[in-house]
Amino acid sequence: MQGVDPAWLPDEAFRPIGTRRTLIRGSGPLVDTVHGEVAQACERFGGSVSREPGLYDLVFELTGDDGYEGFTYECGDGCTTVTASGARGLLYGFFHVVRLGEAAFVREVQREEHRPEWALRMLDHWDNVAVHPVMGQVERGYAGGSLFWDDGRARGELERVRAYGRLLAACGINALAVNNVNVHATEARLLTDRLGEVADIAGALRPYGIRTHLSVNFAAPVLLGGLPTADPLDESVRAWWAETTARVYEAIPDFGGFVVKADSEGRPGPFAYERSHADGANMLAAALAPHGGTVHWRAFVYNHRQDWRDRTTDRARAAYDHFVPLDGEFADNAVLQVKHGPMDFQVREPVSPLIGAMPRTRLAVELQATQEYTGQQRHVCWLGPMWSEVLRFQVDGVSCVGELARGGLVAVSNVGDDPFWTGHPLAQANLYAFGRLAWQPDADPGGILDEWIRLTFGAEPAAGLHAIMDGSWRTYEKYTAPLGVGFMVQPGHHYGPSVDGYEYSPWGTYHFADRDGVGVDRSCATGTGYAGQYAKPWAEVYESPETCPDELLLFFHHVSYGHILHSGKTVIQHIYDTHFEGVEEVEAAGAVWASLAGSVDPARHARGTERLEEQLRSAREWRDQVNSYFFRKSGVPDAHGRRIH
Amino acid sequence: MQGVDPAWLPDEAFRPIGTRRTLIRGSGPLVDTVHGEVAQACERFGGSVSREPGLYDLVFELTGDDGYEGFTYECGDGCTTVTASGARGLLYGFFHVVRLGEAAFVREVQREEHRPEWALRMLDHWDNVAVHPVMGQVERGYAGGSLFWDDGRARGELERVRAYGRLLAACGINALAVNNVNVHATEARLLTDRLGEVADIAGALRPYGIRTHLSVNFAAPVLLGGLPTADPLDESVRAWWAETTARVYEAIPDFGGFVVKADSEGRPGPFAYERSHADGANMLAAALAPHGGTVHWRAFVYNHRQDWRDRTTDRARAAYDHFVPLDGEFADNAVLQVKHGPMDFQVREPVSPLIGAMPRTRLAVELQATQEYTGQQRHVCWLGPMWSEVLRFQVDGVSCVGELARGGLVAVSNVGDDPFWTGHPLAQANLYAFGRLAWQPDADPGGILDEWIRLTFGAEPAAGLHAIMDGSWRTYEKYTAPLGVGFMVQPGHHYGPSVDGYEYSPWGTYHFADRDGVGVDRSCATGTGYAGQYAKPWAEVYESPETCPDELLLFFHHVSYGHILHSGKTVIQHIYDTHFEGVEEVEAAGAVWASLAGSVDPARHARGTERLEEQLRSAREWRDQVNSYFFRKSGVPDAHGRRIH
Repeated sequence: MQGVDPAWLPDEAFRPIGTRRTLIRGSGPLVDTVHGEVAQACERFGGSVSREPGLYDLVFELTGDDGYEGFTYECGDGCTTVTASGARGLLYGFFHVVRLGEAAFVREVQREEHRPEWALRMLDHWDNVAVHPVMGQVERGYAGGSLFWDDGRARGELERVRAYGRLLAACGINALAVNNVNVHATEARLLTDRLGEVADIAGALRPYGIRTHLSVNFAAPVLLGGLPTADPLDESVRAWWAETTARVYEAIPDFGGFVVKADSEGRPGPFAYERSHADGANMLAAALAPHGGTVHWRAFVYNHRQDWRDRTTDRARAAYDHFVPLDGEFADNAVLQVKHGPMDFQVREPVSPLIGAMPRTRLAVELQATQEYTGQQRHVCWLGPMWSEVLRFQVDGVSCVGELARGGLVAVSNVGDDPFWTGHPLAQANLYAFGRLAWQPDADPGGILDEWIRLTFGAEPAAGLHAIMDGSWRTYEKYTAPLGVGFMVQPGHHYGPSVDGYEYSPWGTYHFADRDGVGVDRSCATGTGYAGQYAKPWAEVYESPETCPDELLLFFHHVSYGHILHSGKTVIQHIYDTHFEGVEEVEAAGAVWASLAGSVDPARHARGTERLEEQLRSAREWRDQVNSYFFRKSGVPDAHGRRIH
Repeated sequence: MQGVDPAWLPDEAFRPIGTRRTLIRGSGPLVDTVHGEVAQACERFGGSVSREPGLYDLVFELTGDDGYEGFTYECGDGCTTVTASGARGLLYGFFHVVRLGEAAFVREVQREEHRPEWALRMLDHWDNVAVHPVMGQVERGYAGGSLFWDDGRARGELERVRAYGRLLAACGINALAVNNVNVHATEARLLTDRLGEVADIAGALRPYGIRTHLSVNFAAPVLLGGLPTADPLDESVRAWWAETTARVYEAIPDFGGFVVKADSEGRPGPFAYERSHADGANMLAAALAPHGGTVHWRAFVYNHRQDWRDRTTDRARAAYDHFVPLDGEFADNAVLQVKHGPMDFQVREPVSPLIGAMPRTRLAVELQATQEYTGQQRHVCWLGPMWSEVLRFQVDGVSCVGELARGGLVAVSNVGDDPFWTGHPLAQANLYAFGRLAWQPDADPGGILDEWIRLTFGAEPAAGLHAIMDGSWRTYEKYTAPLGVGFMVQPGHHYGPSVDGYEYSPWGTYHFADRDGVGVDRSCATGTGYAGQYAKPWAEVYESPETCPDELLLFFHHVSYGHILHSGKTVIQHIYDTHFEGVEEVEAAGAVWASLAGSVDPARHARGTERLEEQLRSAREWRDQVNSYFFRKSGVPDAHGRRIH
């Protein structure tokens, strides 16, 4: 698409296909999509595409209509063949060939089965229809405006929406919620009189196999339906949802379902009617069930009016405490959507103990591609390694998160109307990695990174880009959040340091630093008991500062500045050292980036340079504020005598 | 006026006049205003008013047209007489009689001369025409919207503007700037194509002797005139201002002049053209001089992009450093408008050393009636005592601020479209006190308070209200800002505590608290040298912690928590004690207010109750956060064993 960065689908990526002879067998809209893609490539590069048998280098064959999303792949005897029994499978097989590039035609491969780990690989857009006075057009969006909405209206740029869907399909994403989970008055109406605008978006995404979902307001029967109540057990409420949902399916036959944030941060919910969250979710599930839809019910429920004086309440405990008692009560088509950590997408959190604690509930794990707490797409922070750690985390010594999250994998989108899609050109990698990990959670994140780099930038700058990005999350952690401390950010917008910014707030976000030490005691023995929410061995590992991993020490324990880490350093020296190192690593990344000037597209390079300059300024600010803060409190000088202000 | 609180001009205040026979002599618009006031009172209470000689209890006589604002007053032989040689003088004499009430007719008084200390007694409205995305309709406004502007348009409620002018005249205010000193694109146009809207406001204020002023954008020749420069020495720029100003006077013949914030917090100014602030001010003064207008040039110039790591730069020094070298260079009709303290309207600041340091310049002192840092009209904080301290402060052992500020007294307005004018009904007292102190800077603030209470509330609740209000500034100081520390507020909106909120910011606002001590060393010997900007004896008094007054100790010195104050307490114990005391005083005020339920108008009482509840909640939050912060840093327990979290 003109004027928009091609991301991981530059024309060049289609040369291997476009120079060959392709046979496409089968019929239906997604087969047409594949055909169109191949035809376009051939037009550009001179190959051919046909639906009739003959002599071919490449075959795409749809054999059925069973909805299966996997495909088989083989390459031999001068022909590469993709076969699928469901239309989406064929589409994913096509993009598999695109990703392989020339290798798809020269490397012999025996028949391989490919199938996604999760049926649901979903992006949640926190896009507002009307500009929110505080949160703007896209809540926690760092890539310009919304692709879908503009100042109260549907944007109507469906060509770009289609191009977006194409990028998503190419990394395996198959579902998308078009509006923010905080559903205000304007957004609520997408469910009813503004449904046509949602249908238009769904129409633009459908050719790439993406189902559209909608965030809804739990109070919609009152707000929109004029009912006196939104009680989920009230028959008139249930009837209203059933009718309303049926109308949604009339307009969007493959509609995915609803996303709900209820009783959270001021949103309405079933608590107002003394009903449980299972009651709330099941009511919506009942409305969706006849049509094959799903309700995603977010588990992000906690008291955001905490008193910092009260050290017994612990926000980290909230999701587990609220939801574990409801295990087994949710309907089959209700998915409980759980943030990967117990707090809120901090740079470092333990994996949420809710995952694995509700064996009779379909859970989806929610990641955050938009870099709210990880540099807001002004800093390079490649999240593949973090997500991979989460997905591979062994909950009970046997199952890992990737296996337990039967309801799917969800990410909050990092995309907007920015020409580079994601503000920082390198932030595209997070979107790509999310899709690829949702397909294969045990994939090597370094391999995904290299795949993304090769597709997006080609071979020349690959080594440099890998060096800049591979460790960038840990670099970010170093200059911001030591040892599992979170929320040392500017309140509200969450960019830049403010060590005490959330220390006396109602949001339940504390580090309790004093002149002697720092950290939150979440042990069972002397703290909030949060560590006890884990199954063994983690309950025991986290319980003691002696066994707790260094990187989570201050999340689980309040220790003295002189406490010796497993690394052999004191806590205070670790704080100083990592903050100096983090800045040095950003400086090094900047030098590498500068050296890539000749091998990266000039527009991308200019944008990246501007962002890296800001990252360096900001990293120094983080270093100096955090170090000064802890030096002023602890009085302990840096062992290496470096300048602390 | 219906639906709006009568403030200090309830109908009842006009009974003593309205029951008597009044003669009015002289002619002109302001005489008509006085006649109209008396006639209205008589209509209500049965008295009479005439312009013909006869038998009278009360005489108002205008004897000339010399612009003098004073009047003579006498009472004897059964007649009370007010005489003035200028029309405004007659108006102020009328309101003098209103304020005296029945006493004006029963207490014999020999001929008294009354005259205002300052010719200019001005309110600056920080009202935006267009709603600012961050600052809203009224910057730092806590009383609803603007009286003048509404979402980009002139409000057009001229009856209310007139009622406002009447209140202002009754306390002696005679000038008003109708828009914010931060002049954005929409506001800039008030000078040219939207001048008619300003003329309408001026027309509504004129009957009460109030001249209208306009804040202008220094870059107006570029923004509005299409010139390539705003260089104050450029002839085309000077011609543009001259023509533009002439057109203003065509529309508003008694226009007061311009207010300018230049080269400050991002505003344009003469620095861009390598010209001095005298060059900038004098250019505007030249444009205004032919018409009798004045330019108010704000001295609020400082670096708001400071580096907190740099301890040599001191924002407190900035105004003095910038402007003292320009003494003698400003035109006669240019007034340099200086905030009363060197920082920004904190709860406690020393008096600005600029006042007294520019003997050849007309200075105006700027106070802040709007309670930006003093509780935002949710807290009772009567500022009369603070302002009185400032105005009585002896700069050089002889002159006091009240004598040195020859250019007038200015306050940032605390008024909006709120039915109570000022949000908190008791905040009206600040507006009233400002006017009365601008007339007579050495007036006893307690007397002004009692006068305001008697006029506004009558006699019944007077003792209770006096008890609530008289010490409320010191109470506020106790629970917020100990010993001259400033800026421990939430960044941005400035409401509520955040001890480190501005500690690592670019705004130049630090307390440097560490585990050993707190405060800013502004001595000449070891600090920023700010203390040396004062004339003797203050330079010496402030230089040493031994002689520095306790209430400013941390403004001038960094001392240990164990430092013994003149009071005999340690700094840390003072912090604890005042914070506990402050909350207790708010609790006591709340109890007194509750006891006044029967003697205060129910609507006012309800509003006050709501505000006092918030004040108490907020005061407790201040107490606990400040005490916890300093306890965590110092490790020193409270000597009285009270709960610190």
